[in-house]
Amino acid sequence: MSNAMRMLETYPKSINLDRAKLAAIDSLKACAQTCTACADACLSEDMVADLTKCVRTNLDCADICETTARVLSRHTGYDANISRSLLEACATACRACADECAGHADRHEHCRVCADTCRACEQTCRDLLATMS
Amino acid sequence: MSNAMRMLETYPKSINLDRAKLAAIDSLKACAQTCTACADACLSEDMVADLTKCVRTNLDCADICETTARVLSRHTGYDANISRSLLEACATACRACADECAGHADRHEHCRVCADTCRACEQTCRDLLATMS
Amino acid sequence: MSNAMRMLETYPKSINLDRAKLAAIDSLKACAQTCTACADACLSEDMVADLTKCVRTNLDCADICETTARVLSRHTGYDANISRSLLEACATACRACADECAGHADRHEHCRVCADTCRACEQTCRDLLATMS
Amino acid sequence: MSNAMRMLETYPKSINLDRAKLAAIDSLKACAQTCTACADACLSEDMVADLTKCVRTNLDCADICETTARVLSRHTGYDANISRSLLEACATACRACADECAGHADRHEHCRVCADTCRACEQTCRDLLATMS
Repeated sequence: MSNAMRMLETYPKSINLDRAKLAAIDSLKACAQTCTACADACLSEDMVADLTKCVRTNLDCADICETTARVLSRHTGYDANISRSLLEACATACRACADECAGHADRHEHCRVCADTCRACEQTCRDLLATMS
Repeated sequence: MSNAMRMLETYPKSINLDRAKLAAIDSLKACAQTCTACADACLSEDMVADLTKCVRTNLDCADICETTARVLSRHTGYDANISRSLLEACATACRACADECAGHADRHEHCRVCADTCRACEQTCRDLLATMS
Repeated sequence: MSNAMRMLETYPKSINLDRAKLAAIDSLKACAQTCTACADACLSEDMVADLTKCVRTNLDCADICETTARVLSRHTGYDANISRSLLEACATACRACADECAGHADRHEHCRVCADTCRACEQTCRDLLATMS
Repeated sequence: MSNAMRMLETYPKSINLDRAKLAAIDSLKACAQTCTACADACLSEDMVADLTKCVRTNLDCADICETTARVLSRHTGYDANISRSLLEACATACRACADECAGHADRHEHCRVCADTCRACEQTCRDLLATMS
C-alpha cells in the first residue's frame, strides 16, 4: 500500500471522491519524479542541444503533476471545479510530455520510460475526470 | 521593473507571447505569496475552526499560481496547449479562493487583502488567455 | 523498483553518489506526500485549534522534502555543498515534524503514521549524509 | 510595499522575527523567479551544451529559494531550527548559483543578472541568520 493510500485511510471525515481513484495521486507523484529525472538526464546527453524542448516540457510536467498530486491529497473544503480544471491541465501536460519524449525514445532510455509514465498518468487523470462529471 | 520583466529582456530568442502580458508572472507570484501568508494567518486565528476551507483553498491557490508562474516563465519549446489549460485552472483556483476569502474579509484583514489579490490575479489570467485564442 | 530507481538506471553519465543510497529519494517523496496529507487531515479534525503547529510543521516538512527529492534527483553538474546543506535542513525538518506529530499520535492515526514516516525519512537523510562526508 | 510585507501587517499574532528582516521573503521570491528564467534562457542559447551545470544549479536554487520563502512566510508554530538550517542551505545554493552564473556573465546577460540576484539573496539570507543566533 502506498503512503498516499495509507494516509487516505486515516482521513477523519468522508472524502468526496472514489478512494480507489485516488490512486491517481501515486501516478502523479511517479510522473513528477520521472519527469524531473528525465529533464536532468537530457541535460547530461551529448546531444542536449536537440533535447531542449524535452527538458522544458519535462520541467512543466513535473511541476504540474506535483501540484495536482497536492491538490488531490487535500479533502478539507473540497472544490470540484479546482480539481477538475487542474486535472484537465495535467492531462494536457502529460500528453505533451509523452509525445515529446516519445520522439526521443529510440535513442534515450530515460525518454522511453518517461513517455510511458506520462502516457499512463494522462490516462489516470482522464479516468479520474470521468468519475467527476 | 520586476525581476520577471528584467529577465524577459535578456531572453536570447523570440518569445511567443506579448511581453507586456507576461506581467501576469508578477501577478501570479504575488498571489502565491499572499495565499501562502493568508493560509498561515488563518491558522493563527482563534476561530481557525471556521477557516479550514479557507486554509485549504489558499494552499491550492498558492501551489497552482506558483506552478503557473513557472510555466509562463519558460519560453523554450513553447506549447500553447499547456499554458492555456493551466491558465484556465489557475483562473478557476483564483476565483474560488477570492470567493472563499471574501466571505471572511469583514473579520480578517488578511482575507480581505487575499480576496483582492486573487481577484486581480484571476483577471490577469483571463486577460492573458484572451490574447492566446 | 520505484520510478526514482528505474530512472537512475537510465542516467547517461556516472553518478557521484552511491546509487543505493539514492533510495533516499523514495523516502523523501513518501514523506512529502504523508505530510501534505497529515496537514489536511489535521484541518478536518474537530480539535483543529490544537493542531495548528502540527499543520504548519507538516507544510514546511512537505515543501522541504519535495525540494530535497528534486535536488537529489539531479546529477548533472553535481555540487556536494548544496546536497549536504539541504539534507541537513531536511533532517532537521523531519525531526521537528516527527516530534510534533508524535505528540498527537495517540489521538490521531494520521499523526502516528506521519511521525513514523518523518522519523524514517530523517534517518535516511542522515544515512546519506554519512556517505558524503 | 510588497505583497509579502503587506500580508505581514495583517498577521493576527506576534511574529518571532524582525519584520523588516522578513524583506528576505521578497529577495527569495525574486531570486527564485530569476533562476527559473535563467535556466530557461540557458536552454535557448546555441551553446547550451556549455551551460548544463548552470541550468541545473539554477533549478536547484529556484526550488530552494521558493521553499525557503514559503517557510519564512509562515509564523504559526515557529521553529527556529527549521528556519535556520534552511536559510543555511539556501545561502549555500545562492552562492553556488552566483558563482556558476558569474562564469558566464560576460557572454550572457541573463547569467549576469542572475549572478547579481543570487549574490544579493545569499547576503539577505546571511543577514537574517545573523539576527537569529
